[in-house]
Amino acid sequence: MPTEAAPPAVILVRPQMGENIGAVARAMMNCGLSNLRLVAPRDGWPNRLAWRLASGAEQVLDEAQVFDSLADAVADLQRIFATTARNRDMAKWIATPRRAAVELRRLAAGGETTGLLFGPERTGIESDELAIADVLVSVPLNPAHASLNLAQAVLILGYEWWQAGDETEDLRLHRGGSPPATKEELNGFLDRLELALDEEGFFRTPEQKPHMLRNLKALFTRADPSEQEVRTLHGLLAALRGTRMRRSTPE
Amino acid sequence: MPTEAAPPAVILVRPQMGENIGAVARAMMNCGLSNLRLVAPRDGWPNRLAWRLASGAEQVLDEAQVFDSLADAVADLQRIFATTARNRDMAKWIATPRRAAVELRRLAAGGETTGLLFGPERTGIESDELAIADVLVSVPLNPAHASLNLAQAVLILGYEWWQAGDETEDLRLHRGGSPPATKEELNGFLDRLELALDEEGFFRTPEQKPHMLRNLKALFTRADPSEQEVRTLHGLLAALRGTRMRRSTPE
Repeated sequence: MPTEAAPPAVILVRPQMGENIGAVARAMMNCGLSNLRLVAPRDGWPNRLAWRLASGAEQVLDEAQVFDSLADAVADLQRIFATTARNRDMAKWIATPRRAAVELRRLAAGGETTGLLFGPERTGIESDELAIADVLVSVPLNPAHASLNLAQAVLILGYEWWQAGDETEDLRLHRGGSPPATKEELNGFLDRLELALDEEGFFRTPEQKPHMLRNLKALFTRADPSEQEVRTLHGLLAALRGTRMRRSTPE
Repeated sequence: MPTEAAPPAVILVRPQMGENIGAVARAMMNCGLSNLRLVAPRDGWPNRLAWRLASGAEQVLDEAQVFDSLADAVADLQRIFATTARNRDMAKWIATPRRAAVELRRLAAGGETTGLLFGPERTGIESDELAIADVLVSVPLNPAHASLNLAQAVLILGYEWWQAGDETEDLRLHRGGSPPATKEELNGFLDRLELALDEEGFFRTPEQKPHMLRNLKALFTRADPSEQEVRTLHGLLAALRGTRMRRSTPE
């Protein structure tokens, strides 16, 4: 029963270690995936080692479905994307995880049921099984050391799936409560700084003053201070000059 | 000594479990990162549990540097990107891993030395330590279950770093040896198929024939067969019609 933009099912073919199945469930939970299907898990099912590694993703394991054959596991699905480390001797589309994620979102938005297929640890999926995949997914990584473990492969695919639907700004300034200072507030501080530097004889020659002031202005502008930070800078200036009333209350 | 586009150093602050340090080394190796720095690892260093999990990334561990303080660990670096799960009460730039990776590549290409900072398991890095970071990196994930373990966080950042410098086509057709069939080859098969279907009386009425042929042509065109596959289709057609000489040699 596909819903709009339903996440892909994650299908593990003959997974070996229960710990890895648990780690897969955790990675799925991180990425908003919840439909886990196991084809002939080597050590049977349920496997307590899986729950031990799931930390927070127990529900994914509780609801996992077990199948005897891959054909049964994918029977209701319309599109299969299979992650594989090696190129096979088969004419197939190969996508990066990023592109695969975009395609999965597009297909799901059109109401199609999708699945992500992962083979067993070490050996990987068999070529005969891979033939049912519409698209192979190959993760571009350091060719000298490209092998990912099962949960890491699921994490990368799931991560990309989440990113493809995520609208977080790619770079943003987190300010806490205080808004950015206005130019008037910033200039108020810079004027007071200039005055103080004049009084302290900071500018050795009148010629160098405009240039140095410009650079200081550029520095404080680049720091992009908040209202609160400009107030702090005023206080700091006063403290450094010793013009503030010091509290003389003894401890 | 920065080289052009040098990869960032990976700095682990007070890492707890040796296994996690090993898994980090493995994730680094996957992503072409090799400069590992440890600040006050809880269980000392070297830690044999790290090597046990490294599988192939032993060199990263062999060459890891250990520091007593974070300040020492980052002394030679010009830019620090720190991964953190929580927003802090500090005005800071926050980037997605994808954007951070692009910035790291840009800075490194300009000859700047960069580092990726990761806090200890569970507790994360302290706010005072985070103050030295130029940019915080926050991984957009399922808000109901966003926590990644240390090696997974390193993998996501490293994966994005690798992708930012990778030029793999995002979707490509892997064909093995045989080139795509020419239109003449494909049409040769389709003509023969039409002839065979005519002879077998497949088209019940002359009216429906053009429409059905068009759909068959669309189907075989969409499959985008290779030369070799068109030859296979010819053979298949001949076999189905029984017009081929069958070998009668007894087993």
